Order: sequence, then structure tokens, then C-alpha cells
Amino acid sequence: MIHRGQGRAPDQLRDVTIERGYTKHAEGSVLISFGETKVLCTASVLAKVPPHKKGSGEGWVTAEYGMLPRATHTRSDREAARGKQTGRTQEIQRLIGRALRAVVDLKALGEYTIHVDCDVIQADGGTRTASITGAYVAVSDAVAWLVREGKIAQSPIREAIAAISVGVVNGVPMLDLDYNEDSGCDTDMNVVMTGAGGFVEIQGTAEGAPFSGTDLTALLALAQKGIGELVEAQKLALTA
Amino acid sequence: MIHRGQGRAPDQLRDVTIERGYTKHAEGSVLISFGETKVLCTASVLAKVPPHKKGSGEGWVTAEYGMLPRATHTRSDREAARGKQTGRTQEIQRLIGRALRAVVDLKALGEYTIHVDCDVIQADGGTRTASITGAYVAVSDAVAWLVREGKIAQSPIREAIAAISVGVVNGVPMLDLDYNEDSGCDTDMNVVMTGAGGFVEIQGTAEGAPFSGTDLTALLALAQKGIGELVEAQKLALTA
Amino acid sequence: MIHRGQGRAPDQLRDVTIERGYTKHAEGSVLISFGETKVLCTASVLAKVPPHKKGSGEGWVTAEYGMLPRATHTRSDREAARGKQTGRTQEIQRLIGRALRAVVDLKALGEYTIHVDCDVIQADGGTRTASITGAYVAVSDAVAWLVREGKIAQSPIREAIAAISVGVVNGVPMLDLDYNEDSGCDTDMNVVMTGAGGFVEIQGTAEGAPFSGTDLTALLALAQKGIGELVEAQKLALTA
Amino acid sequence: MIHRGQGRAPDQLRDVTIERGYTKHAEGSVLISFGETKVLCTASVLAKVPPHKKGSGEGWVTAEYGMLPRATHTRSDREAARGKQTGRTQEIQRLIGRALRAVVDLKALGEYTIHVDCDVIQADGGTRTASITGAYVAVSDAVAWLVREGKIAQSPIREAIAAISVGVVNGVPMLDLDYNEDSGCDTDMNVVMTGAGGFVEIQGTAEGAPFSGTDLTALLALAQKGIGELVEAQKLALTA
Amino acid sequence: MIHRGQGRAPDQLRDVTIERGYTKHAEGSVLISFGETKVLCTASVLAKVPPHKKGSGEGWVTAEYGMLPRATHTRSDREAARGKQTGRTQEIQRLIGRALRAVVDLKALGEYTIHVDCDVIQADGGTRTASITGAYVAVSDAVAWLVREGKIAQSPIREAIAAISVGVVNGVPMLDLDYNEDSGCDTDMNVVMTGAGGFVEIQGTAEGAPFSGTDLTALLALAQKGIGELVEAQKLALTA
Amino acid sequence: MIHRGQGRAPDQLRDVTIERGYTKHAEGSVLISFGETKVLCTASVLAKVPPHKKGSGEGWVTAEYGMLPRATHTRSDREAARGKQTGRTQEIQRLIGRALRAVVDLKALGEYTIHVDCDVIQADGGTRTASITGAYVAVSDAVAWLVREGKIAQSPIREAIAAISVGVVNGVPMLDLDYNEDSGCDTDMNVVMTGAGGFVEIQGTAEGAPFSGTDLTALLALAQKGIGELVEAQKLALTA
Repeated sequence: MIHRGQGRAPDQLRDVTIERGYTKHAEGSVLISFGETKVLCTASVLAKVPPHKKGSGEGWVTAEYGMLPRATHTRSDREAARGKQTGRTQEIQRLIGRALRAVVDLKALGEYTIHVDCDVIQADGGTRTASITGAYVAVSDAVAWLVREGKIAQSPIREAIAAISVGVVNGVPMLDLDYNEDSGCDTDMNVVMTGAGGFVEIQGTAEGAPFSGTDLTALLALAQKGIGELVEAQKLALTA
Repeated sequence: MIHRGQGRAPDQLRDVTIERGYTKHAEGSVLISFGETKVLCTASVLAKVPPHKKGSGEGWVTAEYGMLPRATHTRSDREAARGKQTGRTQEIQRLIGRALRAVVDLKALGEYTIHVDCDVIQADGGTRTASITGAYVAVSDAVAWLVREGKIAQSPIREAIAAISVGVVNGVPMLDLDYNEDSGCDTDMNVVMTGAGGFVEIQGTAEGAPFSGTDLTALLALAQKGIGELVEAQKLALTA
Repeated sequence: MIHRGQGRAPDQLRDVTIERGYTKHAEGSVLISFGETKVLCTASVLAKVPPHKKGSGEGWVTAEYGMLPRATHTRSDREAARGKQTGRTQEIQRLIGRALRAVVDLKALGEYTIHVDCDVIQADGGTRTASITGAYVAVSDAVAWLVREGKIAQSPIREAIAAISVGVVNGVPMLDLDYNEDSGCDTDMNVVMTGAGGFVEIQGTAEGAPFSGTDLTALLALAQKGIGELVEAQKLALTA
Repeated sequence: MIHRGQGRAPDQLRDVTIERGYTKHAEGSVLISFGETKVLCTASVLAKVPPHKKGSGEGWVTAEYGMLPRATHTRSDREAARGKQTGRTQEIQRLIGRALRAVVDLKALGEYTIHVDCDVIQADGGTRTASITGAYVAVSDAVAWLVREGKIAQSPIREAIAAISVGVVNGVPMLDLDYNEDSGCDTDMNVVMTGAGGFVEIQGTAEGAPFSGTDLTALLALAQKGIGELVEAQKLALTA
Repeated sequence: MIHRGQGRAPDQLRDVTIERGYTKHAEGSVLISFGETKVLCTASVLAKVPPHKKGSGEGWVTAEYGMLPRATHTRSDREAARGKQTGRTQEIQRLIGRALRAVVDLKALGEYTIHVDCDVIQADGGTRTASITGAYVAVSDAVAWLVREGKIAQSPIREAIAAISVGVVNGVPMLDLDYNEDSGCDTDMNVVMTGAGGFVEIQGTAEGAPFSGTDLTALLALAQKGIGELVEAQKLALTA
Repeated sequence: MIHRGQGRAPDQLRDVTIERGYTKHAEGSVLISFGETKVLCTASVLAKVPPHKKGSGEGWVTAEYGMLPRATHTRSDREAARGKQTGRTQEIQRLIGRALRAVVDLKALGEYTIHVDCDVIQADGGTRTASITGAYVAVSDAVAWLVREGKIAQSPIREAIAAISVGVVNGVPMLDLDYNEDSGCDTDMNVVMTGAGGFVEIQGTAEGAPFSGTDLTALLALAQKGIGELVEAQKLALTA
């Protein structure tokens, strides 16, 4: 018998909330919660592109990720004070950027950069998947701003994108792991999918014993279900 | 005739809100707002002290400060990505640490470190003064936790501490400058005072023309009034 | 009709060679080639463990990855001269370390560190998969040295581990992509599996259009076939 | 009864010497001593401005500060070897730059940068105030060079600027603290004033008990006296 | 009686091998061995020059040096991971660059940079001298490529350059020290000479007792002999 | 006909002055001038040794080198602000350290470190040779302090050490090059010798055409003469 926090079923997401306009300066600013995990995702529009895009007529979407020092159970060093970002931070921000670029037509964006910042206010597992899911909403708001300001004619966003973690915990495949579940799981997988159900990224790691093809199938089915619900939550938030 | 935002009088603070327990992991966690300026102040208790205090029987209080990249009107570089903190950041975090140590008896604290993190979620002037004022409340909560857990016998906090900015804007001395007022002011001063009305820190800078002793007297009177009100707000928050 | 270099079939590996004892100082030293990709993998035994393992009775296996500046078509900056490793480098070396730890019993290793260095002498796609596959052989030699020297009683290696890339190129699922295929592919996936056929890591990314579950199934089947062959090559090399 | 070194009265400066042309390459080069504190201030003229001033028609004045490793009682780490400047160093060099800019009309300077370097040869308290006071003379010489070379028509310097420290030592307000006095004082304040007696910067810190408005008034009066004398010494040096 | 490894006479070089075309991407790529010391020297042609040569019509030749972490008896830290190159590394790469520039007519090279990378695969003494000697061959190949591609009309190389170490070991002057000899020697000298027998660089250091003019004369004679042989080996390799 | 500055003969040193006790905190503090080149050499005694000497009963002598930003004709970047020392700086400070260790018996020194700092106040060629020559005097004073304080029984200094540059300028071998001569010379050599006339370090570089054995002989004779005079100047200074 499995007991997840707050009576969650193995295939159930934590409560998801998406609050737009959380801060006032950014063109898109979203506070997303997956249960106790809270991430502030801002999307800033810059009227310039990085060197490798200069003169190409194309835009760019990039992301940075950070964790407030006491977002976690015990305080972590501030990366700015240590003088460099950890490998984990870099891995996550590269993942967020790739995921967002998968659904934005850079040609249609024109020579603008959308610079996303995902800052974890409170961490309880799933910070990278919450970041991607919230960042999509922030980017949508930034794109709407670009259209509203007459800077681009129409939205370059092709479809929605969201992400969720799945894992095998004590032999049971589960959706949307919290920190405790994540720490004790055998297999941990992050899945990024589009609104239309295509896979954009699968990152699965056996923390303990290797996993089988059967495990994999079960986990992907859970992820598909979860992402379907997240995409609905994004839609709802964007029409609110 | 002076027009401040929202009909504020020259000697009036912006709306101040202090929300305790904003995040769940830190021993003290406070979201403080001075109008549109919002800073998350967490106080983390560590059962160790820095090298220069090892074996001294004394504790330590220190602070770090950061600004989310899009807390400001235009996006600033993320310090962790640049690989170093700016001189401004270091100045502010040194100021916050000194201010807090001025009211904590390090001997009575014992060999614990209270590590304060002030992270600006949204900036509209006065981030360093909001940080000090909020950090005091977070430290109070962390100290209460230490006492409650039986780790120290009684609070090492001697009295309250708070900070406010004052400045001469278009010739008029004003209290608690917002970003626009701060950008255009002739003289900008940050004042840190204790609950009992002693000065802990005065940092005044002529941005334009030098200021006179008369200006100084007017500014200090304003600061004194403002800090009195902040200390009341801290008390109220701590007894809520 | 698909034309791969040198008449390769879509499900065919490039020529794999594994040369043990390539350099003389390291306890394990392997030059592995996947076609034109050549990586020198050394395994160094250190009689100490990192801080988080001190006194635990357990050992550690870790990896670092580097690319000689002119291993690639155009010269890349030397990371030592730039003063930091790229995010890509960090991602790869974290992956190699996790993969090796998945098959080594750290308790049985005792308080030794096996420090693996994977340095790419020439790059033509698949440097991370060649690194993992070669590093396993180098670690095996380092472990044999530990046993031979009487430092540990028996090998802590549970089973073999190898890795291969797969991808969808112009609509065709293919095994072991070279640089050209990798640059033009829609979906790129790196798979790490054990000798017994368990999955240890799956990292799939849609570079162009999202991929379907059907693509995924085809790619994993290819990977399974390739890794089976790599594990045979490892066995052969280790008994040579 | 107060005993200061060498029979100094509480309101008395240490011996001040200002030696122009101390080194031969810089456009302005001044060795200033406040007692045993010796700082070499050079002002270098560069025919370019930083990015934020490019094309503005305005010039820039900036400062860097350093301490030779054995300028102090015990050797400090060389900042160049540590790979970064301390927070203290950055605070001081920002202060020096602001102070100098307060008396230079950047428009009248034209697109030149005056880059000031203040390097402490020997430290005995008051290095930042000696730096500002000496830097003013070095900048004056650099400006004279610009005029003499026909690069600008007339001096952009509006008035003199100097700085001094004051503090409450064992309850007695004192002028120009040396290292021992500074280490033991309750309140430490650095004051920067113009030749005409306007305040440019006040930085006061309670090291021990908070200070009162009465203390503040006494300290500012001392500072005013001291700065008056320093401005005389600057004039004398510049007409020598 | 002196016993060198493998019956070497005091004035005898170790076996020298020079393998051109060792890797496929670089315009020049040479694996050179001095006995057990093996260095991969690549020469990359870049169609640009560093800032100080821009618009001068002249080219540039520069070098970087690295040591694979386990090229040595015990593993050294990876410089890219430490975040900086050691002083030793910088000294060596500056030496290699100067040596190569001594025989290349930068005007005749035109606005191209030849960027040499010397990476030590296995170290057993003499890595810097092997680097210079091998780099000359790699640069020759890169220059041949430039001529063959019609980018420059004729070779800008004036003459050959090679380097060798000499030293006094247990009182006996010896040529081409291996690691053991180098560790125990009194005087260690690296000599760089041209094909025509001119000195380009002499770097001699007394590790133990100071050396005399007589020692110096003996060492230089040995170096001259060794370099003559190396220049022959280079010629042979380049005509192979 | 050769015209050197101030009618110097080719084999003539510039005016050498050695001023002991230049600053008051260091155990040894010397301002040395070779003509217009002025270097402050301090020797600091630390009652500890670096890790590789811990518990060995031996001491250590090490050196750091720096150049004030405007010691030179045009301002150079401050290394502390750039965040790293140049390769040139590292080369020089390694040279100074090796030279001093050549004449100090580390066993006789006991577990003390003598940390030498050579900071160039004004540069006009020969800063590294002036540094070594002045550092010897500073170390002598630091050693005298150690003996006087009863920390060691007798001086561990075996003999004097000094350094000078020589070079071929327009075909003429010359002693002690100033900046102009150094910039225009064909061959530049720095020679470090002991009081008894043994060579400790020879570093010769052909800046233009390679040099011959005859040039070398002439340069070494000049160096020998110059160092003899420097050693006399050191003796004189130390007995003053």
C-alpha cells in the first residue's frame, strides 16, 4: 500500500497553481506551484539577439535558473557568492531553454530575445518541471506583449509545452514526485511534451537498480497523463 | 507643490507589510514590502561559526543580498552567471550584516551562525532599507526557534533595528524614496536606527549639489520619524 | 534511400576498437574508437575519498571530460584558458560518473576513489557514449590492479555498462550517429545500458519536430542491439 | 585624560604632507601622508570613455584602490593572487570615484577619462580619507596637463574636495583616527566635504553602542575643522 | 660510472619519433615522442589575427600547452576544472610561442593566425622541448596547407627550430633528461636553437648548487649536438 | 657610436640606491632603484609553512610580484580588478622565489616562511632584476629580525644573490638595459648569480635574430661584472 502526502494517488499531480502578473516589471511574470514547490518565472523581452543570431532575422529564447539559498531544507551556498553556477544549475537551465525553443518559431519571433528567469522560491521536488511549465505561460505573456505593442504581427508560439517528473518509488510508478519521493526513488525521469502530445525531451536515470522497458512504458504513460492536465491548467491560466 | 505617488506626504512612509512564515524551510522567513519594493528575508540557523569565531564561545550573524534578474525595470545580469557579485551588492550585504550585529549579543547567541538572505523579488527603491527592516523580523523568528528548541536559554537580541531612506528631492526633504524619487534626488541618505532611537549607520551621498548641515538635520528628523513607525510595524508583526 | 558513410546500415555500429594500456602511468588506460571518434579514458586510483564519503567505509567513482581544442572541425577555446568548463562539458562528465557508479558497489570498493578522465583526441560524433564505453574498460583495469595489489579482496563491479547514441535522421531511425548525422538529425538520444540489458540512462531530445512513442520504441530497440555488441567488444578487449 | 600618539589634541590632524610628481609617468602623481599612513595617488588621462558615456560628449572620472600586501601590521593576501577584490576594497574605490566626480564637471572635461589609482604604501588608519584628499591633487595636476596640452580649454574642476575620519574614542570625539584609535573606537565616521564646506558624503557606523544626535553634531564639527585644514594643505601643495 | 635508462650515453638523445597527420581535423597534427614522453602538437589556421595585429598586414603564431590529468605518475588536477592554468603552464606556452615566432616571418604569413596546441599525452621529462620540436613540424604542415590552398604565395618559415633539455646529473653533463634524471639533477637547462645553429632561448636553473661557466659551456655543447639531430629528424619526418 | 642615457658606458650600471626600512611594518622593507626603476621589496616573516613543508622541520621562501597600474608609460589594468595575474607576472614571481631559495638553507630557517613582495612603484626596464637584488636585502633584514628575536639561532643565508639584465642593442652588448634599450634590443638576457660568482639562473631570449655563442660569452662577462658591483652595493647597504 502506498501512502503519498495528502492522500495522493500514484497517478495524481500535486495541486498546481499558476499566478500571472506576479511581479510588475517583466513582460511575463508567473508564480507557479506544484504543491510546495514554488518557482517565479519571468520572461523579459530584449530588442537584441546573441552574436550567433545577429543579422539572421531570427530571434532567440534562452533561460537561466536559480535557487534562493534557503529554498531548500538546509541552506545552500549562494552561487553568486561562490562565483560560479553548479553543473546541476547549468544542466537545468539548458534544458528549460531547449524546451521553450522547441515550440517557438524563431523566424516568426524576429530579432528579439526572450530571456526567461526561473527562480525557485521554495523547493519540494520537481523544480525543473515546474520551471518549464510556468515559463511557457510567462513566454506566452511576453509574446502577447510583443503583439500588443505592434512589434511582431502574430504569435510565434506553435503549441504549448509542459514538463513533469515520474519515477518508480518502492516498485510503484508514480507521477510528479515530491522531495521525499524523489530522494528515495529507484528511477527518476523528467519528461517534456508538447500540447499535441509529442515528446520533446526524456531524461531518465536509474538511481538504484536499472529499469526495464516495462517500467519505461508505465512511466511514459503517467507522464502523458500528467502533462495533459498541466496543459489544461496552462490554458485556463492564460484565459483567466 | 510636491506630488508623490498615491498622494503621499513628504514625511509619509509607503505602505509597509510584513508577512512572516513566507517560505517553510527557513527558521525565519519574512516577505516585507515598502510599497512596490518586495524583499524576501530568510534567517537560517547553522550550528557552526566562521573560522574567526571558532572556539570563542560567540556566535555570528551575517547577511547576503541578491536581486532577481528581473526585479528591476530592465533585466540585469544574473550575478551567478557573471561569476561575481557587483560592488553594490557587496556594499549592501556588508551593511545589512553590520546592522543586525549591532543589536545581537554574540556571546549570548553562543556558537551558532544566523545566516540572513535578502532577495529582492521586486524593486522600487529602498531595497536595502526594506532588507534590514525585514531581516530583523526574520532573525527574531530564528532566535525564537533557537529558544523554543532549547538550544539557547534566552534571546540575545538587545533591541529592534530598522532602516529607512531619506533624500532631498527638488529641494524638499522626503521620507522613504521610491525608485523615481531616488533617481532624481540631490541627496540620498540611508539611516539605520535602533528601537531606542540610537544611530547605527548613516550613509549620505550628494548625488548632485553638496548638501548643507541644515539639510542633514531635516533628513535625520524624517528618518527618526520613519524608523519609529517601522519599529511599531515590526512589533505588530512579531506579535501577530 | 539512405547513404551512411562507408556503406553502413542504419542499425550498424561504426568500427569499434578498444586499446588497453595506451599510456603507462594510469592504473587503467584505454583508447577507444567509434569510427573516427577517439577518446582516451584513464582510470586513476586514489587512496582517499571526497568529503561526503569520509569515514563511511565506501568508495567513490567520478569522471571528468575534456576535448582537446582541435579535436573538432574548427578549433574550440581551451577550457583551462577560458577559466571554466562549459555547461556541455559538465553535463557529460556528470553523466559518465553516474553511469559508472550504477555498476560499481561502492561499499565493496572500500575507501578508494576511482577518478576517470575521458579526453577526446578526435571528435566525430558520439564522444560521450564512447567515453562511457571505454571508461568501463579502464575502470575494470583499475579494479584488477586494486585486487592484484591486495588492496581489495574482490572486484566491486556488478556488471558491464556501455552507451550508444541513436537518432532519427531524415525520418530513419539510426544507430551510432557520426557528426554529420548528428548535426542533421530530428531526434537525438543517448542510451546507457548494463550488460544484463537494464536501462541506466535515457536522454532523448527533439532537435526539430517532437518525436512520437513509435519513434522512441524503434530507437530503444536499436540502442539495445548496439549496446549488446559494445558489451561483447568490451569483454573481448578485457580478455585479450 | 586622553593620550593620543605624539601629544595630539582630540581636534588635531596628524602631520599631513603632499608630494607632487612622486612618479614620472602619470599625468598626476601624488604621495600623501596622514601621519604614518602613506598613499600613492596617480591620475592617468585616457583619451576614451567607458561605454555608458560614449558619444555623450562627457568625460568620466573613476578610481581604483589597493593596499600593498605588507602595508599593514600583518601581511594580507595579495588581491591579484586571490583573484578578486574584497568587498572593502570595492566600497572604498566606489567612494573615491563618487567623491571626485562630485567636483568635476564631466561635460567640461570632454570625452576623456581620468583614471585614479590609490595604492596604500603604508597603512595606519584613514587610508580612504588620505586617498580622496591626495587624489584631488593628482586630478588637479592631470587636468592642468590637459589644459597645458591644449586638449581642453579650461579646468572642469568646480572646487576642492577632501575627506577625513572622525570618531568617538573612549567617549571623546576625535579627529583623524590612527589605526589604534580606529580599532578601539565606538563610532567611526568618514566625511567628505568640498572646499566651500558642502557635504558630499557622510558614512558613520556605530562599532559598539549606537551613537546619539549629540555625538553626530560633535563629530561633524570636528570633520569640518579638519577638512578646512586639508583644503589649505591642498592649495599650498598645488601652488608650490 | 653513469647508468641511464636503456644504456643511453650521456650525450645521447632518447628515441625520437615524429608522426604526422595524427588527427584529421587540424591543418597540422603531429605526435612526437622523446622516449616515453608523448605530445600531440596540432597547428590550426585561423583567418583572423589578435587585436594588436589587426590591420597590420601581419599574422601571428601563438601556442597553448596542456597536460592530460593522468599523463603523469600521479594524477594532477585538471586545469579546466580548477578554473585556471598554473604558472608553469603559462610559462611553457609563452616559451613555445616565442620559439615558433622566432622562425616565422609574420609579414610573409599575412593576416592569418597559426594557433598551436601542445597536449601532453604521457610525460617522462622534456615535455616543453618535445612540444617545441613537434610544433615546428605541425606548423610546417599548416603552412604547406596555406600554400597549397593558395592563401599565401610561399612559406614564411625562415628555418627550422628545435629544443632540448640538458643538465648536470650527479656531476655529469647529460643530454635530454628523462623524469628521473630531471628530478635529481643539480642544473637543468632548456635550449632552443634554429636549424642554422643560432640560439633563440636559453633557460638554465641551478636546482641545487650554482653552476659554473665551465658547466655552462659543456651543457651548451651537448644541446647543440642534440638539436642538430632533432633538426635532422624533423627534416626526415617532413619529407616522409 | 653608442649613446646611452646620461652618458652611460655599455658596461656601466645605472645608479643603484638601496634604502632599508622604507616602510615600518615589514620585518624587511627595501626600496631599490636601478636608475628610474623603483621597486619596493618587503619580506614578511610568517610562523607557518605551506602544506608541502608541514612537519618537515624546514622553512620556505616565496615571492609575489606586482606592478602599480601607472608604474608604466601607459596605464595597465590592475590585476586584482581583472581577477588574475598575467603569465608575465607569474613567471617573474616564480623566478624571484627560486633565486632567493638558492641561497637560503631551508633546514636552518626552521618552520618559518619568508614571504617576499616586490611591488614596482616606477618601471623603466629591469624590474625583475631590481626585485631580486632588493629582495635579497629585505630577506637579510627579516633573517636578522628572526635571529634578534631569538626565533632562530643563526642566519640560514649562505651567500648573497643579485640579478642583472644584459642585451645586445644595435649589435653592442650592454649591461643593465633601461626600457628604451630593452624595447629595441635583439637579445635580452637576465642573469642571476651568487656573491661567490656561481650562476643560479640564465634566461636569454632572442627578440630579433638568433644569437651566437660569442654574443653569449660577451653578455655573461658583462653580467658577471654588473653582479659583482650589485653585491658590493648590497653589502654596503646592509652595513649602513
